[in-house]
Amino acid sequence: MTERTLTGTGATPRSGVGTVVWYSPDADLPDPDEATADPDTERRRFEDARETARSELEAERERTAERVGDQEAEVFDAHLQFLADPQIEDGVEGALEDGLPAEHAVQRAFADPIEQFEGMDGRTAERADDLRDVRDRLVRILVGGDRVDLGDLPEGSVVLAERLTPSDTAQLDPDRVAGFATATGGRTSHAAIFARSLALPAVVGVGDDLHDVDEGATVVVDGEGGELVVEPSDERREAAHETHDVEIREEAVTTADGAEIEVAANVGQPAELEGAKARGADGVGLYRTEFLFLDRETPPDEDEQYETYLEALETFPDGRVVVRTLDIGGDKQIPYLELPEEENPFLGERGIRRSLGPDADLFETQLRALLRAAADGDGRLAVMFPLVATPEELTAALETVDAVADALEDEGVDYAIPELGVMIETPGAVFTAPELAERVDFLSIGTNDLTQYVMAAARENERVAELRDPRHPAVLRAVARAVEAAHERDAWIGMCGEMAGDPELTELLVGLGLDELSMSAVTVPDVKAAVEATRTDEAAELASAALEAATGAQVTERIESTTPDQ
Amino acid sequence: MTERTLTGTGATPRSGVGTVVWYSPDADLPDPDEATADPDTERRRFEDARETARSELEAERERTAERVGDQEAEVFDAHLQFLADPQIEDGVEGALEDGLPAEHAVQRAFADPIEQFEGMDGRTAERADDLRDVRDRLVRILVGGDRVDLGDLPEGSVVLAERLTPSDTAQLDPDRVAGFATATGGRTSHAAIFARSLALPAVVGVGDDLHDVDEGATVVVDGEGGELVVEPSDERREAAHETHDVEIREEAVTTADGAEIEVAANVGQPAELEGAKARGADGVGLYRTEFLFLDRETPPDEDEQYETYLEALETFPDGRVVVRTLDIGGDKQIPYLELPEEENPFLGERGIRRSLGPDADLFETQLRALLRAAADGDGRLAVMFPLVATPEELTAALETVDAVADALEDEGVDYAIPELGVMIETPGAVFTAPELAERVDFLSIGTNDLTQYVMAAARENERVAELRDPRHPAVLRAVARAVEAAHERDAWIGMCGEMAGDPELTELLVGLGLDELSMSAVTVPDVKAAVEATRTDEAAELASAALEAATGAQVTERIESTTPDQ
Repeated sequence: MTERTLTGTGATPRSGVGTVVWYSPDADLPDPDEATADPDTERRRFEDARETARSELEAERERTAERVGDQEAEVFDAHLQFLADPQIEDGVEGALEDGLPAEHAVQRAFADPIEQFEGMDGRTAERADDLRDVRDRLVRILVGGDRVDLGDLPEGSVVLAERLTPSDTAQLDPDRVAGFATATGGRTSHAAIFARSLALPAVVGVGDDLHDVDEGATVVVDGEGGELVVEPSDERREAAHETHDVEIREEAVTTADGAEIEVAANVGQPAELEGAKARGADGVGLYRTEFLFLDRETPPDEDEQYETYLEALETFPDGRVVVRTLDIGGDKQIPYLELPEEENPFLGERGIRRSLGPDADLFETQLRALLRAAADGDGRLAVMFPLVATPEELTAALETVDAVADALEDEGVDYAIPELGVMIETPGAVFTAPELAERVDFLSIGTNDLTQYVMAAARENERVAELRDPRHPAVLRAVARAVEAAHERDAWIGMCGEMAGDPELTELLVGLGLDELSMSAVTVPDVKAAVEATRTDEAAELASAALEAATGAQVTERIESTTPDQ
Repeated sequence: MTERTLTGTGATPRSGVGTVVWYSPDADLPDPDEATADPDTERRRFEDARETARSELEAERERTAERVGDQEAEVFDAHLQFLADPQIEDGVEGALEDGLPAEHAVQRAFADPIEQFEGMDGRTAERADDLRDVRDRLVRILVGGDRVDLGDLPEGSVVLAERLTPSDTAQLDPDRVAGFATATGGRTSHAAIFARSLALPAVVGVGDDLHDVDEGATVVVDGEGGELVVEPSDERREAAHETHDVEIREEAVTTADGAEIEVAANVGQPAELEGAKARGADGVGLYRTEFLFLDRETPPDEDEQYETYLEALETFPDGRVVVRTLDIGGDKQIPYLELPEEENPFLGERGIRRSLGPDADLFETQLRALLRAAADGDGRLAVMFPLVATPEELTAALETVDAVADALEDEGVDYAIPELGVMIETPGAVFTAPELAERVDFLSIGTNDLTQYVMAAARENERVAELRDPRHPAVLRAVARAVEAAHERDAWIGMCGEMAGDPELTELLVGLGLDELSMSAVTVPDVKAAVEATRTDEAAELASAALEAATGAQVTERIESTTPDQ
């Protein structure tokens, strides 16, 4: 057999080699026998299917937020919007009135909107894929089809498909799957974005030739060169292996010239702790605690929380675990807390605002559990407060910590005050960073929210997606200001937004002066490698060039011109 | 007759003298004969009333935004929310099922929520008043009651009332009414807030004694001392007149030590131009152009716009008129533009984002009209772009200006390039202010939006109202950064948010380095007086103390300790 190379668009700067598994979800629909279905019955079927689709999407959004990232999960919000779109609803109703069965009514109602999006430019055209996803989901539910389980593929599989939906891609397990390639899609398709977040070798947009590759064939997915190599030569396989296997470094790393940079993991579930450790995370830079409060009828009590925090500390006995106090509101809801409907939830009562307001009792209980765990646990516990906008809020939070400590003291319960920190996610926190840093041990920058507020561009809104660029000088200058404030006050400063997990940006972030980077566990090895390849003097030069740039494009240019070939 | 003094809470630092007119809207409701109304009929009546109430509220919101201010208008959003509240809806439905007529069903459904709010602390308790407003509006509509016209009172009236709703207060014409006093309400009640914005002498929370004051009596409303003086002595009347009449200064003013500060008016309708001139505005610092596009089926054409802009220039032949290009999205909708539903509209596609995207045609037409008016008009025209977040957006907007100029040139049409500027309302614009200032003639700070984004606290959301403090150091530091960037680039910088119209803050704003302040016309004389009382060295000291403060309360303290008694 001879090597054969198909070209497409590389989605990730990684390569993998494995065995082809074709994924072809069948969305075929038999023609309706006749247009004589009963509209009322079919309307009920459609409503039920829509309800099921909504539940599925909400569950997938949660899962994706945990496994891939918050930003990636936002595509499911777009899907939920389409599900409730009045134009489509009208289309379905019209088709039902014409006597079509629900599944055909759905097909017909989506046809025009899909065609409209297809006629548009660039990223907008990719919305057609989102509409297809929603349509296919409804049809699958209506015809009772099963979902193919992409989470359970043989180790070393390379998935080939015409296209992969966000739900499909989110199921892929980067520890088992060697990569994927799709016939359609571009660099900004959801599949490509998800691949980058999961650090999965991937090539998209290969075209129809992809279908000539047989099930079971051996292929190299070269995500850097944008090639799919069928029946590769030994050299080619070897090369793929080499770039694929980023070494896992369990010990802490330093830059090439010896500066210590802590590389930690973001964790959203206890189940992820071991994986984070296995990938070499120095500790947990963001332990989200919302999982403790979700999917139940009442909030967890103090002891349950205490045990959970101890477990995290036990996993990293030599590292640090940074726990974020409950951060709900915005797009995160908890039924029993009865959060209000807000016109602009991202500018509403969320994060510390709830903890200092309606959820004061929960906040106190959580702090009690944390102060007890700080005394009894193995590793170092740190606690940080989300969405602080003013020094007044921090003062109130610290007063609560003191009050909780006094109460534990009076009760004779062991406790310790953990390291305390503030998340820098609002411009208000950036502008008052000196006063915040003065009173805490550390700051941690949440780039997703910070970018959204600096740019006044909501995280879920595709229409303003281009503005949400964390590399833009507007955001970098905010970051630099926070770093300066922290270091002047002898506080350390980390970053736990998605930006921290992009190895292309590691040199820039080191140059900006961050002491810690925390990210999805999958990218820890890449970022550790990037730290080791960085020299602080070059990094500082890159950072000052980026801070002086006027546009996001200029920053990207500067990063690309200075990044060493690895 | 002897002078008699009732005490309450002063709402404005102004006094007025006039003749009592009692305002007692009757909301009395006959008891239902029997509980046997037909639920279906009554449900329809309720639905119709709710629809009418919604239209009224939307119209009043617009009118209040124009006459009083954007922020004050937000109370109507809260009312619209209550109108759609599911708890209240359930309550109405239950009462209808019990056979009550719609008006009694409304009374019953609001009773519990009103009681709940009444049991709460401080500002939250005042929401009970909002609920009462909504309830009374629905009942009035259902029983077919007329609305008392507060906009048409005899000149020199002092309105006394148990309480005034936001709709009531917004109707008061500060040129005709000498003041008002209410039995209920505190310093943060809507009536008090509106009074300050309208610069109306007002005393709230006088208590039941107010009802002993007779119709037609002469009273002094002392909004500074918090007193209502019935049948005042001649001295007392004289004193009230003196403080009431802030001199209108038609000429430009300087600080006590000779620094020129432009004091201009915010204008939302051509009808307001003359009033702005009459109150001594040097020009228009913010000419909102949304009125051109509202309440019609299709957008205005180029000639209509051109005439409108010429009219503004003619009113201020020696001044400057700063026109803001169309700023919709967020909470501002225009039916024929089919704005999308967004989950967080204030973080969505609004301002310049629409002008560079879906409304590109409108933007071009507006710029054509503006460039022609700049050539043909008497005064100086300036044009500014709303909600810019990045230099990239400004570049795109300036390229459109160039393209429009080229087209006019080719067509042989007279045109001139007006002064060009950028609104600073997003943190992104603050952080890139040097690059923005480099390319334009001026910057203008919109404090309402800037505060909302810096604090991540939506303008319409009462739950985060405390965070929306434009005096907070977080906001002041953003302002200072923009001022510095402007002056380093030889651009002038103004402020057209509500903060600019508060005479208590004039010294601070002069100290921060603002060259121009633009506000509701009613407060122009007060701000001009405040400018004349300011010394720039003292103002600079105050500003640096405020910038070094850690909290909003500290800023307020510093302002109060340095403000000279006027």
